[in-house]
Amino acid sequence: MATPNLGENPVNIDYVHGYTANESTRLTDQATTLTEPLHADTLYPAGSMVLEVGCGVGAQTVILAANSPGAAFTSIDIRKESLAEAQRRAREAGLAKVTFEHADIFDLPFASACFDHVFVCFVLEHLRRPAAALEALMRVLKPGGSVTVIEGDHGSAYFHPDSGHARRAIQCLVDLQRQAGGDSLIGRRLYPLLVQAGYRDVKVSPRMVYTDASRPALVDGFTRKTFTAMVEGVGEQAVSQGLMDEASWAAGIRGLHRAAEDDGTFCYTFFKAIGSR
Amino acid sequence: MATPNLGENPVNIDYVHGYTANESTRLTDQATTLTEPLHADTLYPAGSMVLEVGCGVGAQTVILAANSPGAAFTSIDIRKESLAEAQRRAREAGLAKVTFEHADIFDLPFASACFDHVFVCFVLEHLRRPAAALEALMRVLKPGGSVTVIEGDHGSAYFHPDSGHARRAIQCLVDLQRQAGGDSLIGRRLYPLLVQAGYRDVKVSPRMVYTDASRPALVDGFTRKTFTAMVEGVGEQAVSQGLMDEASWAAGIRGLHRAAEDDGTFCYTFFKAIGSR
Repeated sequence: MATPNLGENPVNIDYVHGYTANESTRLTDQATTLTEPLHADTLYPAGSMVLEVGCGVGAQTVILAANSPGAAFTSIDIRKESLAEAQRRAREAGLAKVTFEHADIFDLPFASACFDHVFVCFVLEHLRRPAAALEALMRVLKPGGSVTVIEGDHGSAYFHPDSGHARRAIQCLVDLQRQAGGDSLIGRRLYPLLVQAGYRDVKVSPRMVYTDASRPALVDGFTRKTFTAMVEGVGEQAVSQGLMDEASWAAGIRGLHRAAEDDGTFCYTFFKAIGSR
Repeated sequence: MATPNLGENPVNIDYVHGYTANESTRLTDQATTLTEPLHADTLYPAGSMVLEVGCGVGAQTVILAANSPGAAFTSIDIRKESLAEAQRRAREAGLAKVTFEHADIFDLPFASACFDHVFVCFVLEHLRRPAAALEALMRVLKPGGSVTVIEGDHGSAYFHPDSGHARRAIQCLVDLQRQAGGDSLIGRRLYPLLVQAGYRDVKVSPRMVYTDASRPALVDGFTRKTFTAMVEGVGEQAVSQGLMDEASWAAGIRGLHRAAEDDGTFCYTFFKAIGSR
């Protein structure tokens, strides 16, 4: 969904969500809300060496490392400023077994077959060549080692009451991410991506987030503060590029907030794929 | 998704899927494939009296009754021909505790508060007044008794590779069902429907069906034989009404079959709601 990408082009990182303080807060809200559904079943054995790719500001890193206290993590990102923030968080969380490194997914500074597991979350969606990235990761994975990939799919969002403006606003985000070289509909195609990259025993499990008034923490943490905030974040870009006029955009955002009211519902699905080398 | 409806207007039952032998086979394929994800957790205690509303040809009845052998079922439908078929199936399955009755959901021939539980599956989507139906059902439910409602949501369907023609073909089904007075996007609004009808402790759990080549039985049983078959079933109507031209329609159906190939994926979500009187 939205951690800073690794960028095939380090000079011009087109991270659709930007790198503001608001965005950093949103990433943390997102990670906290989604810890249970997305990460609870990612547990690495003691002694295993895990590569986390595109750790960004460390939103997932702290969850991963806390879940698997016996594993050693190497967390990489293309953006030095994000790594500094991630490092600060890991230190605050008292996580001793995480090493941060500045690295490019397409030019990994690691020997072949040196990791037991690779973890990639909200990264492939931002890459022009996600298949090539998966192939590059396989090189550093030991035979029998696992890759875990988690991605969202913005085409999986629907809600009640339905709103054409809200649907168009989401489509703006899809279009802008595509302009930036990414694919925010990538969740649904993780299976063929991993299979085509040569991974074996690929299993995909969708993680659907559904919110209604009986789940107020999820309405607030996900519908408002994660998804709607993410769409709102590209409003200026969408309007300035003429993808939507300002009034329609505002109506779209109102439509998303409407789905977070007491008689509204909201649905979104993440996809978690696991494969073996 | 598609069991014969109860029709507010018994003279003119606009069941969008029709009543052909093919449709009866499709309903059985659907019910068998979906038994585990939709029905495995519906278990009624021995001695309880359960009303199944809109049993149609009995596709769900045989599953329900087999799961709860100690409960007594009264299964109703507005269409006598469907009831005869349902009765034949129940007899073949050796289910002794199911009674079939010809009845209209809006004019239930039962005393107030006489059932412990009410079960409604793929019915509300076909009704012009689903909220009124839920209110009518509450009358025959004992205080503290439960209602279980299961519905699909055709707006929850997405797939890889994406296909504009396939999306339009699905939209034709949504439009035709709306013409017939129904709402095939009803799944996402079960929560407010039940709450507004006065049910308490309403809990909705989405049941997402995801298929890829690692799940061949589901690809065949659901993507091809349930969902694609259902869309194909309204092809003549869609083309004759000019909703799509014949070539585009054919491309749409090909698009759905394409998603059932080895590098394709398909997603659809059912919603199961439970509430108390």
